[in-house]
Amino acid sequence: MTRVPDEALDLIPGGTLITATPAEGRALAIAIVRNTVHNIQPELEALQAGRPQYATDAARLIAATQVVSLEFATIAAANNYWR
Amino acid sequence: MTRVPDEALDLIPGGTLITATPAEGRALAIAIVRNTVHNIQPELEALQAGRPQYATDAARLIAATQVVSLEFATIAAANNYWR
Amino acid sequence: MTRVPDEALDLIPGGTLITATPAEGRALAIAIVRNTVHNIQPELEALQAGRPQYATDAARLIAATQVVSLEFATIAAANNYWR
Amino acid sequence: MTRVPDEALDLIPGGTLITATPAEGRALAIAIVRNTVHNIQPELEALQAGRPQYATDAARLIAATQVVSLEFATIAAANNYWR
Amino acid sequence: MTRVPDEALDLIPGGTLITATPAEGRALAIAIVRNTVHNIQPELEALQAGRPQYATDAARLIAATQVVSLEFATIAAANNYWR
Amino acid sequence: MTRVPDEALDLIPGGTLITATPAEGRALAIAIVRNTVHNIQPELEALQAGRPQYATDAARLIAATQVVSLEFATIAAANNYWR
Repeated sequence: MTRVPDEALDLIPGGTLITATPAEGRALAIAIVRNTVHNIQPELEALQAGRPQYATDAARLIAATQVVSLEFATIAAANNYWR
Repeated sequence: MTRVPDEALDLIPGGTLITATPAEGRALAIAIVRNTVHNIQPELEALQAGRPQYATDAARLIAATQVVSLEFATIAAANNYWR
Repeated sequence: MTRVPDEALDLIPGGTLITATPAEGRALAIAIVRNTVHNIQPELEALQAGRPQYATDAARLIAATQVVSLEFATIAAANNYWR
Repeated sequence: MTRVPDEALDLIPGGTLITATPAEGRALAIAIVRNTVHNIQPELEALQAGRPQYATDAARLIAATQVVSLEFATIAAANNYWR
Repeated sequence: MTRVPDEALDLIPGGTLITATPAEGRALAIAIVRNTVHNIQPELEALQAGRPQYATDAARLIAATQVVSLEFATIAAANNYWR
Repeated sequence: MTRVPDEALDLIPGGTLITATPAEGRALAIAIVRNTVHNIQPELEALQAGRPQYATDAARLIAATQVVSLEFATIAAANNYWR
């Protein structure tokens, strides 16, 4: 098995929830979710095998998006909604 | 494969969570959710193949609506509920 | 195909999250959820075909109720819980 | 078909989110969730047919409990957590 | 059928959301979730039949844990996060 | 059957929701979720049998990540988002 690279395991890339813009906050949400997945399953082959499952199935694609929405809610609150 | 157009990948269309009205906030929630889906799966063909799956299946339609509700909660808080 | 009528596509019926009572807030939550479904799937025939799926299946009925609960949380906060 | 009785359709039984104790708040959460289900599906026969589905299946039982937890979060906030 | 004992139906064991420590708050979250399940399904035989379903299936185990997380969010807020 | 070790049952490892950094908060979220799973299912053999189910299935991997996101939301609020 191949382990995902170290940076793909960084639980909070950049080390902070604070971002300059909402779009950067959204990108951070995606990165945090992805790297949490990697921490639960760090084997590259297993991740690559699972990729077609969710990327072409509407239910899993919606579920992945839902986790990003939840994560973004936390990041948006942290940034006081970039008001 | 065809990649979705660049504007369909914009993580926060308009670049802000602030909107003039609740209805515009809801439309933004739908747009953010849709474009997050596009970022996870940017291949147009895969998206079009998945469309009939959720649009005609009640469970997936409810799941898609749930993500919009979650996203709207964040946007509504950002706008102090348009009080 | 038949498109749902325009009022069924109104993203925030009444244009505001503020209501006089908790019961009106709950009714608004149901209306917002329903109309979001209509925006994702505006074809009347597809909606009518999906109706028996969730209305007679406990899992989908619970899922639909869950989205109403999420939406109501936002509306209740907007109304400062009608305290 | 038989329609559920009117009181089973009351969206917010008692008309308020404020309760004297946490246990009464939890009971209200259960009542609100149940009556929302009734509003989505008011036919008694369909509800009774669906009852065995969720009451004996762990996944649906957990899902029903999850909706109660979400509803209770709103009621608890409304009551300032009965502090 | 055997009904679960009365204490297993107590909606908020202890009658308050306030606890001395985070660990006690987590234990309360588990107890509240469990007793809500009992209120929806008070027949001991049905509960025991459903137990192997979720305890040995990863999807249901994750779902049960998710409800505990949601419940704990409310309890943690009630306790001002034990700061 | 083998019971998981005592430390794997600790409901809040470290006894507090307060952490020095967001990454430590995320690690705590993962630990809390994992140990809640252990409390619901403390048999090591059952846990090991379930592991391949979620670690190689995209849907369960996403669901596990979602619970971590929910838990992190609570921890982030407890830490005032490490602002």
